[in-house]
Amino acid sequence: MPASRLSRFEAFSLFAFRYFRFQTSLISFPILVSSQLLNNSTPQPLMTSLTEHLWFEIPNRRGFINITPTIEELVRKSGVSEGLCLVNAMHITASVFINDDESGLHHDYEQWLEKLAPHAPTSAYQHNRTGEDNADAHLKRQIMGREVVVAITKGKLDFGPWEQIFYGEFDGRRKKRVLVKIIGE
Amino acid sequence: MPASRLSRFEAFSLFAFRYFRFQTSLISFPILVSSQLLNNSTPQPLMTSLTEHLWFEIPNRRGFINITPTIEELVRKSGVSEGLCLVNAMHITASVFINDDESGLHHDYEQWLEKLAPHAPTSAYQHNRTGEDNADAHLKRQIMGREVVVAITKGKLDFGPWEQIFYGEFDGRRKKRVLVKIIGE
Amino acid sequence: MPASRLSRFEAFSLFAFRYFRFQTSLISFPILVSSQLLNNSTPQPLMTSLTEHLWFEIPNRRGFINITPTIEELVRKSGVSEGLCLVNAMHITASVFINDDESGLHHDYEQWLEKLAPHAPTSAYQHNRTGEDNADAHLKRQIMGREVVVAITKGKLDFGPWEQIFYGEFDGRRKKRVLVKIIGE
Repeated sequence: MPASRLSRFEAFSLFAFRYFRFQTSLISFPILVSSQLLNNSTPQPLMTSLTEHLWFEIPNRRGFINITPTIEELVRKSGVSEGLCLVNAMHITASVFINDDESGLHHDYEQWLEKLAPHAPTSAYQHNRTGEDNADAHLKRQIMGREVVVAITKGKLDFGPWEQIFYGEFDGRRKKRVLVKIIGE
Repeated sequence: MPASRLSRFEAFSLFAFRYFRFQTSLISFPILVSSQLLNNSTPQPLMTSLTEHLWFEIPNRRGFINITPTIEELVRKSGVSEGLCLVNAMHITASVFINDDESGLHHDYEQWLEKLAPHAPTSAYQHNRTGEDNADAHLKRQIMGREVVVAITKGKLDFGPWEQIFYGEFDGRRKKRVLVKIIGE
Repeated sequence: MPASRLSRFEAFSLFAFRYFRFQTSLISFPILVSSQLLNNSTPQPLMTSLTEHLWFEIPNRRGFINITPTIEELVRKSGVSEGLCLVNAMHITASVFINDDESGLHHDYEQWLEKLAPHAPTSAYQHNRTGEDNADAHLKRQIMGREVVVAITKGKLDFGPWEQIFYGEFDGRRKKRVLVKIIGE
């Protein structure tokens, strides 16, 4: 291997390192493998991960927001072709779940959760003695779930025909976050 | 490194590429690392993923099917030794969950879910105004969950003594899919 | 590349292999990439996984245990900087979930789950005809969930302000296990 070729690899290496360092939330690990073995001179990234935090401030106590387009955009940004995408609420009175984007169904969820874990009387919950009035929100979130894990196949969320990702708020009127973590190659 | 050795690597490289290309659902990334450093000439696969879609058509509205043997077979097929296996319903009126393969318990689940989210009267749900009669199925699925993530250790599902994976149908009599995604090495 | 340099790599390779072989539950794959290409002589581990089983024996039928410090310690031990951490109950009458470490809330969960899936009368459940009295525990566990998947970012669990991981027991007074699987780099 002549010295001039090595130098070109070193230059690329440095470029790749600098490029990815300035993508603050995109942590990439472009491990370069010998072009002699792979029989071409394109460097091969082996594993990539992307971490993003989405912010929400729902004006009411409860609400559902379809966050699918945002997650799709992050999958594109990650460059991951085959992998897993974790989306989870970072707050314990909120949910991330997958279901139908149909307003009648969301109304049904709202009524059903209120029947299974009613907000009032707030004094019925020991948790509310701490000064909170959101004990019911901690219960509702267990029914709807904290997180979803979605497969990424050929660079896209591997979804069935009606699957949509929702942020479910049960104690809003304050800022809250959702974490998106993508790993794969 | 003599030129003749390089040629053998190139030949293997090409073989591996072609072999994996023809395994339609098995996407493998046998990144080869310098034999000089690993001090042997065997190429090292670094990360592998497998994607499969399973089809179901349950003749009744509701039913539970033990899919553990199928998932075990896919883990073997993937060749993954250490990793994660995601199994999720691709339809929003169905579940994938882990529990006991005991018919009495399945009867109890059926009765319990019907009590928590009754099918009738169907007019009690706004979702059913769309022409569907399956609003209860969307609710039942949230209790039982959309997905499971199972560890793969030493090439096998890392299960406790009674853990079995089930497909749970709450609005059957039509074709539905389950996604299996395995990643690891 | 002089022969003396190769020998140092071989020595490290051997050391790494032996070191990791004796860490029974820490399976690491320190694939070494050419120092010529990365322009430094430090070997690069590409993907790491850690598998641990935690044991519990709760003296009562039901109980919640905060296992967050243990999981944090395992994340440190794994050396994973970016990845996913799966924590799941290996028994089907127990849960792993994320919520608040507040005793009033735990009391509320206990009362709520007992209302949604009462233990008695045990004869109300077909599952209990097998000689068990724990059918309610199989139901409660579906509400609270089997597992959580938590992102690892910069070597730490990527948690919101109040997120804590709990083991939830619904049929205790016997030995049970929780599985922790960490994958990433």
